Amino acid sequence: MSDLNAALDAADAGVEAGLARLFELIRIPSVSADPARVGDVRRAADWLAADLASMGFEASVRPTGGHPMVVAHDQGAPSGAPHVLFYGHYDVQPEDPIDLWHADPFTPELLPQPDGETWITGRGASDDKGALMTFVEACRAWKAATGALPCRVSILLEGEEEITSPSLGPFLEATQGELKADTVLVCDTDMWDRETPAITTMMRGLASEEFTIRSADRDLHAGIFGGAARNALQVMADVLASLRRPDGKVAIEGFYADVAELPQETADIWASLPFDDAAFLGGVGLSIPAGEADRSVLEQVWARPTFEVHGIWGGYSGEGFKSIVVGEAHAKVSFRLVADQDPEAVRAAFRAHVEAQLPGDCTVSFKRLGAAAPVMMPTDSPMLRQALEGLRDEWGKAAVAGTGGSIPILAEFRERLGMDALLVGFARFDNRVHSPNEKYDLSSYVRGTRSWVRILDKFANGAG
Amino acid sequence: MSDLNAALDAADAGVEAGLARLFELIRIPSVSADPARVGDVRRAADWLAADLASMGFEASVRPTGGHPMVVAHDQGAPSGAPHVLFYGHYDVQPEDPIDLWHADPFTPELLPQPDGETWITGRGASDDKGALMTFVEACRAWKAATGALPCRVSILLEGEEEITSPSLGPFLEATQGELKADTVLVCDTDMWDRETPAITTMMRGLASEEFTIRSADRDLHAGIFGGAARNALQVMADVLASLRRPDGKVAIEGFYADVAELPQETADIWASLPFDDAAFLGGVGLSIPAGEADRSVLEQVWARPTFEVHGIWGGYSGEGFKSIVVGEAHAKVSFRLVADQDPEAVRAAFRAHVEAQLPGDCTVSFKRLGAAAPVMMPTDSPMLRQALEGLRDEWGKAAVAGTGGSIPILAEFRERLGMDALLVGFARFDNRVHSPNEKYDLSSYVRGTRSWVRILDKFANGAG
Repeated sequence: MSDLNAALDAADAGVEAGLARLFELIRIPSVSADPARVGDVRRAADWLAADLASMGFEASVRPTGGHPMVVAHDQGAPSGAPHVLFYGHYDVQPEDPIDLWHADPFTPELLPQPDGETWITGRGASDDKGALMTFVEACRAWKAATGALPCRVSILLEGEEEITSPSLGPFLEATQGELKADTVLVCDTDMWDRETPAITTMMRGLASEEFTIRSADRDLHAGIFGGAARNALQVMADVLASLRRPDGKVAIEGFYADVAELPQETADIWASLPFDDAAFLGGVGLSIPAGEADRSVLEQVWARPTFEVHGIWGGYSGEGFKSIVVGEAHAKVSFRLVADQDPEAVRAAFRAHVEAQLPGDCTVSFKRLGAAAPVMMPTDSPMLRQALEGLRDEWGKAAVAGTGGSIPILAEFRERLGMDALLVGFARFDNRVHSPNEKYDLSSYVRGTRSWVRILDKFANGAG
Repeated sequence: MSDLNAALDAADAGVEAGLARLFELIRIPSVSADPARVGDVRRAADWLAADLASMGFEASVRPTGGHPMVVAHDQGAPSGAPHVLFYGHYDVQPEDPIDLWHADPFTPELLPQPDGETWITGRGASDDKGALMTFVEACRAWKAATGALPCRVSILLEGEEEITSPSLGPFLEATQGELKADTVLVCDTDMWDRETPAITTMMRGLASEEFTIRSADRDLHAGIFGGAARNALQVMADVLASLRRPDGKVAIEGFYADVAELPQETADIWASLPFDDAAFLGGVGLSIPAGEADRSVLEQVWARPTFEVHGIWGGYSGEGFKSIVVGEAHAKVSFRLVADQDPEAVRAAFRAHVEAQLPGDCTVSFKRLGAAAPVMMPTDSPMLRQALEGLRDEWGKAAVAGTGGSIPILAEFRERLGMDALLVGFARFDNRVHSPNEKYDLSSYVRGTRSWVRILDKFANGAG
């Protein structure tokens, strides 16, 4: 039996034990946004370092200004083998609204589905605990089958991805010599569909912001002041409405100046993809594309910049009715960015737009939440071709090179270490990541692990 | 000494004991909107009934479908004396945002001010506990000085005014014979300024509503769906913005059809009033009138209908950032109505407007919160002239007949009992009713009590 086949067999034989490990990890509520869970986030880091150490990695939990990093190295690969750095994140999104979950978010289960699939349920089942464990389990399978990994593998797992990775840049800077490798592998993206693997080569960037609009210096009795006093909530609604044109375009002056059209080659490939708008939107209860009217749904979600409101709050939201003219309104918003758009330039233009909308006796204050530049990966590297071959061998069909959501860390790896990333993901569109009832398909987990086993083999054998 | 002078002296002598009683009442957190405070609301009713009984009223706490009514009658007046029904409310607004209060909302204090005024502080100090106690203390003074009231007095105190009085209509219906009087007296309005008393003869109506807009059937990952999936918060902002025109007018089709212009006589009086726009708005940190551009500030707050947003909520408002396309957005809104506007017709037009704004794959659900028709009181009744005389005697200058916020109960008294109301109030614009740090001027309390002593005397002596 070839080493590859032995490692694939070991991966299959290890599924049950691997799921038990994944369940342990999901049970730790490592919500990075919640200050009350700082101990849980740390516990997830400790758990991962211990697991990696148990299979022979030199593993450690490293402090940062925020949540810690898990760093692990394996030195057992043949001399001259390529060096890969696997990146994942062990923090998860907040679970709220909790009342929409069908079961406890941190009590994972295996749920058989009518279509023959089985779901692994729980917050982080897909994003990113389930996904990162496919790579860890692939390493375990290689070691179990052959005693060693075919490539030199380093692993970096962070605990702040869901809060825009504030510590990652400084950490990469400080550990530069240690984490530099031939490529970064990331497992945090989607498949094209259940049967078709995908490698993501374009990622939208991000600029996120919180802001507060103030009108009167207190909430006022609407029976006395209503009509003459400016209502901060009305101003907030007017401002948010003013940011988006009826045709779905962002209404900020100059917003599209740095937005390039897709390369013709990519546009042609996308046009040929069997993307079903109705199924994509219908799966979440929608039917009318909300984005730029002159763009396809695929362009809207993959290639075009967006403006999104993530939260609004202000005034009275309790039982019954409170007759007030509201003095203070809050919102969280973000922009997804593409091509040459600069997050800080977009942020400045956004702030100028809001200020220009304000009545003269209102004020606004802004709070920067996060930023990431858009990223385009090279589409002609040998390691990309090797990864595509590994996926084709596992899935029996060619992988699609597509685009996806912002993964802000990609710009950090490029800027700090000069490394591009290979984004190989096994998640599905309907995984409800960031939503109640997150799940990961068991087939994503099993065949994802097998895919990594194959990709490491392809890297080790070079060429491609 | 005349009976009147004896009663005025008794009122002055009773101020200290009266304030101690008022403080007891303010200490009871009778927030009618808060289901957790139902016992406190009941406690306030019991306290008032006991106080009224202690001075010889037949007083009782009567159950309703919601919070109870306090009903009290005094039968000691001379035969043939006019019968007045005093109406007040013992419930108060919620105290939130609690962190903006300088002291505990339910621990009243006397706070001397640099201008020589003294504030009575606390939630309800003005609206309506302080105000209703001016009438109660006036009754006590008459009884202390002469052993009897000069008029036949009934008192009705409700515990649901701040939640739009759902039980009042049915209660008046059920007790019709008992509460019918020559007029209703209400003490829940403002003075014109610190030196000038006012009787309110027009009240704006109200239609209030809560609604929820739904787009996708869950919150979605903005990195996957952002751009193509409709965001319920953006739709909410667009809808709220669409309800108000840039010139400050309500943008609902036909909204102004039933809005009459002021009677010329009233318009002339208002135009002659020394109303200071800059001081009115400047007192709350504003400088630019927000209402209809072609109307004066006084018209905006007294005579014109309005649309107001009282609360918006939806999406993520916690620490940090959650990258979601939001599936559900909520708001509470209301309209102030004037002249012949019908609350339920306005509600229907509002709902139709919202539905017309919705993208085809979004839904909206509405919840009726409350309604009150606009009210115009007769300006030529003998009891109005008598009350104006009483005020002139106390304050040394003529009272202004003005307009004010919605007091939804007025329509109930007119419809159920055929009674008009006299709205005599001693509050000031800056009392921060419905806001943190509510207060009532000690001079409002002392001279308000004296004013009622005089008004009861004028009623008893007839003519006018």
